[in-house]
Amino acid sequence: MQPHLPRNVHFVPAHPVAGTEQSGPEAGFAELFQGRWCILTPPEATAPDAVERVRAFWEGLGAQVEIMAADHHDLVLAITSHVPHLIAYNIVGTAAHLEQVTQSEVMKFAAGGFRDFTRIAASDPTMWRDVFLHNKDAVLEMLGRFTEDLTALQRAIRWSEGDALFDLFTRTRAIRRGIIEAGQETAAPDFGRTHAVDPSA
Amino acid sequence: MQPHLPRNVHFVPAHPVAGTEQSGPEAGFAELFQGRWCILTPPEATAPDAVERVRAFWEGLGAQVEIMAADHHDLVLAITSHVPHLIAYNIVGTAAHLEQVTQSEVMKFAAGGFRDFTRIAASDPTMWRDVFLHNKDAVLEMLGRFTEDLTALQRAIRWSEGDALFDLFTRTRAIRRGIIEAGQETAAPDFGRTHAVDPSA
Repeated sequence: MQPHLPRNVHFVPAHPVAGTEQSGPEAGFAELFQGRWCILTPPEATAPDAVERVRAFWEGLGAQVEIMAADHHDLVLAITSHVPHLIAYNIVGTAAHLEQVTQSEVMKFAAGGFRDFTRIAASDPTMWRDVFLHNKDAVLEMLGRFTEDLTALQRAIRWSEGDALFDLFTRTRAIRRGIIEAGQETAAPDFGRTHAVDPSA
Repeated sequence: MQPHLPRNVHFVPAHPVAGTEQSGPEAGFAELFQGRWCILTPPEATAPDAVERVRAFWEGLGAQVEIMAADHHDLVLAITSHVPHLIAYNIVGTAAHLEQVTQSEVMKFAAGGFRDFTRIAASDPTMWRDVFLHNKDAVLEMLGRFTEDLTALQRAIRWSEGDALFDLFTRTRAIRRGIIEAGQETAAPDFGRTHAVDPSA
């Protein structure tokens, strides 16, 4: 953008980290940004009052604002959003193409954990293709960390290293507690899904 | 079990595919099995009326019953439950140990997708350690398929193969629709999470 802007116009990129798997104006709702974080990545030369005006705009919508460098934003989003989306898309793709287990079985028994992944794997394909093409470096770096750790976990399973598994599975609980305490997640079990599902309805 | 049973006692293993990330009797609720599937894996010699009695028990709780061989059950659960749990535990572990991104940042910006993974990564560590130790072969097989597909996806990103990404991201949507139509998931966006979160509450 920068080279195309007149001198008296300031460009303050903002990324609200909020939303659902649905897209477009109809998918919005009044509380969409309430309590969520919005990241601003103003270039160094940006006028402070332009940044403050954008901050006030997002705070007016109920969001909390954090300012960081654009390349740091790309790393933060790679691990908190892009790689999670990639592995969700991937597990759903893997499950759909097995010889031993049918698609019908995958759908029936999805309540064992799989179905949570299908939510973000139902996000807009065009937007997510472009995310991966444009944040390639940060995604590949974080994906490398993920697969390195997954390989270690695979090895622990193969060699029956129960303590290593138990240690990881215990530490990950603390992260969830932190996210709930930060107001970014509901503490209701199973996301508080309505449990009285009538399959004949 | 089998060698220890008197001749007039029948052992009919049953696995209800239902539950939340919470454990123990207090985590139960009346509709827990409503519309969910319960898998029975009776050994071949089991008396049919013993199987029917167990089926009636689960159907009485509101579940739907499917009968399959125990080794097929292990494969089905590996892809629909065990590998999803493993990669959820893994991404949460990876995110917690980065130099470039702080834990505080991971928690703040978790709404970008990451937080969904933390739910199942908050499941009981003892039970899940034992699941991986006892279903090792099926888990390693399905995990091999997952990482093979993920490597292909990583390569597509590195070489900017946008069409390959778009195709996968489109196909995965159909699986989610199937799960919703099978009554195993809510169609509400973002799981119908309550959206008016007050972080100061």
